[in-house]
Amino acid sequence: MMAMKTGTKTLAVDFGGTSIKIAVTDGGTILQRAATLPTAAYDSPRAIMKAMSTSMRELLHSHPDAAGIGLGMPGWVDFYRGILYQLTNVPVWNKQEPVREILEQELQLPVVLDNDANCMAYAEWKAGAGMGMENLVCLTLGTGLGGGIIIHNRMLRGKNVSCAELGQTSIHYAGRVGPFGNRGAIEEYIGNNEFARDAAKAYAAAGISRSVAECAPHLLKKAAEAGDSIATQLFHDFAEKLACLIMNLTYTLVPDAFIIGGGVAQAGKLLFEPLTASLREQLFPVHFSSLQVLPAHFGADAGIIGAGLMAADYADGKLF
Amino acid sequence: MMAMKTGTKTLAVDFGGTSIKIAVTDGGTILQRAATLPTAAYDSPRAIMKAMSTSMRELLHSHPDAAGIGLGMPGWVDFYRGILYQLTNVPVWNKQEPVREILEQELQLPVVLDNDANCMAYAEWKAGAGMGMENLVCLTLGTGLGGGIIIHNRMLRGKNVSCAELGQTSIHYAGRVGPFGNRGAIEEYIGNNEFARDAAKAYAAAGISRSVAECAPHLLKKAAEAGDSIATQLFHDFAEKLACLIMNLTYTLVPDAFIIGGGVAQAGKLLFEPLTASLREQLFPVHFSSLQVLPAHFGADAGIIGAGLMAADYADGKLF
Repeated sequence: MMAMKTGTKTLAVDFGGTSIKIAVTDGGTILQRAATLPTAAYDSPRAIMKAMSTSMRELLHSHPDAAGIGLGMPGWVDFYRGILYQLTNVPVWNKQEPVREILEQELQLPVVLDNDANCMAYAEWKAGAGMGMENLVCLTLGTGLGGGIIIHNRMLRGKNVSCAELGQTSIHYAGRVGPFGNRGAIEEYIGNNEFARDAAKAYAAAGISRSVAECAPHLLKKAAEAGDSIATQLFHDFAEKLACLIMNLTYTLVPDAFIIGGGVAQAGKLLFEPLTASLREQLFPVHFSSLQVLPAHFGADAGIIGAGLMAADYADGKLF
Repeated sequence: MMAMKTGTKTLAVDFGGTSIKIAVTDGGTILQRAATLPTAAYDSPRAIMKAMSTSMRELLHSHPDAAGIGLGMPGWVDFYRGILYQLTNVPVWNKQEPVREILEQELQLPVVLDNDANCMAYAEWKAGAGMGMENLVCLTLGTGLGGGIIIHNRMLRGKNVSCAELGQTSIHYAGRVGPFGNRGAIEEYIGNNEFARDAAKAYAAAGISRSVAECAPHLLKKAAEAGDSIATQLFHDFAEKLACLIMNLTYTLVPDAFIIGGGVAQAGKLLFEPLTASLREQLFPVHFSSLQVLPAHFGADAGIIGAGLMAADYADGKLF
């Protein structure tokens, strides 16, 4: 382990299936962005890490005081050992790689990596809508459904691999099968693509031809707001399934709050009204009366900001 | 708050729907038992607390060095305020009562109360199968399905009322309705009574007349062991539903272990073999390979021992 500089300025990486964003961050602020890297342009994990290192080395020329590096990765991470098992959306990344070791050697700075949803949760907890809460669940609704959980003022990490993989939890013990054989995985119902496919089917059943692309969540939102009752019902069904997850987490954890971000969360009251009604129907009254479901504070930059905040705390030797 | 004596000898109460057990405990040991009190003999919560106080006062004559009192209650507890909201199985206890305040005044000892399943989990964590684990989930299978969760070396308590109410979590977003309107509550499928009712239906569907009483779990176990394929299938279906809960908690928390106690857990490999097979099918491989599902160490005394251990830690001023 190299000597650690302390400070809040860090390098942060938001690793996506399409592009890799790299920036210099300080607290909740982005100071400088590097050019994004096209994820699919590289033919191996080592080539990806090489390109990231080159980009970060350039940023370090102008920010030699950066204290560490944080990475949010859309896959299964062993936080404690700094290993990434696999990246679902990056086909060439199909076996585990010691990301921390490689990048620490390349850049001579402490490196921390975590699941991207954990990074978003970290941003909301440290600087966003859940600031200072003892027990917190963050959900992000997009292509997948990601989660991050804080318990007893610490981010939950699990024993050896990403936890809070809430998209893989089941809402039906004999339901649709997820990527690991997990029956009823909620992502198979309310992931963006699955939601759009179900929507196209609902229109078809009503004799209306609409492609899956025409059923993207933001288009359904427009339709519902224009009075389309099928679209309204689709958000209602979505809310029913999301309520099942939030109910389960409430009976299990009774957190101080749920924070919800990601694209579908933009649907506003189309989603949140039926969600609240369903939770009122299904929760123990004391739970419901103290339940807080809050919109996320950070938008598209939540992941990179969270990765930067993590890197600063890690370089500072703080437990988190 | 009265001055606290420190020590490990305590009074402990296991409050059941049928009888109230009271004992003097020391660590994981029961030193002396009082006569059990018949729960239904009292016409109000105050009368119940009066009878418990009288019994405990007698025990204190022979054990004046007891450091505190711990109570496990089968209902919704606010651990931090020492309040019991309601007891599902005790009709006269239908509104919240400040149990801690009343008993501390009566007996002049520090009082701690918690949900009975939390007490069982505490016993397993402090002195049983999960001793010293950082993250642990305990399940108890009986009339209901109770749970207790340890995270980051602390029992999870929630914000204001019992958490780890795992019997109320859903395994089907549109399934059987639980006591709080919660759709798909797992207790409605694998609680002892529901399991027996489903078993009687399965026999009836096969043209075999068997009463619900004849379908109690221990009788189904005998039947399965004697080669009855319907009974074997019933345990398989039970395991499928339990696997859904354990899978959800694994994807959410990745605990060090699950500990399973209660009557149905006695079914042994009839339950645990299909349970393991189902989890292998449905979990991310890294999760499955490190998954530990362990039988509980304590039997019927788990609750009273856990209540005693809690009382000792509470009287000792330890956070837990």
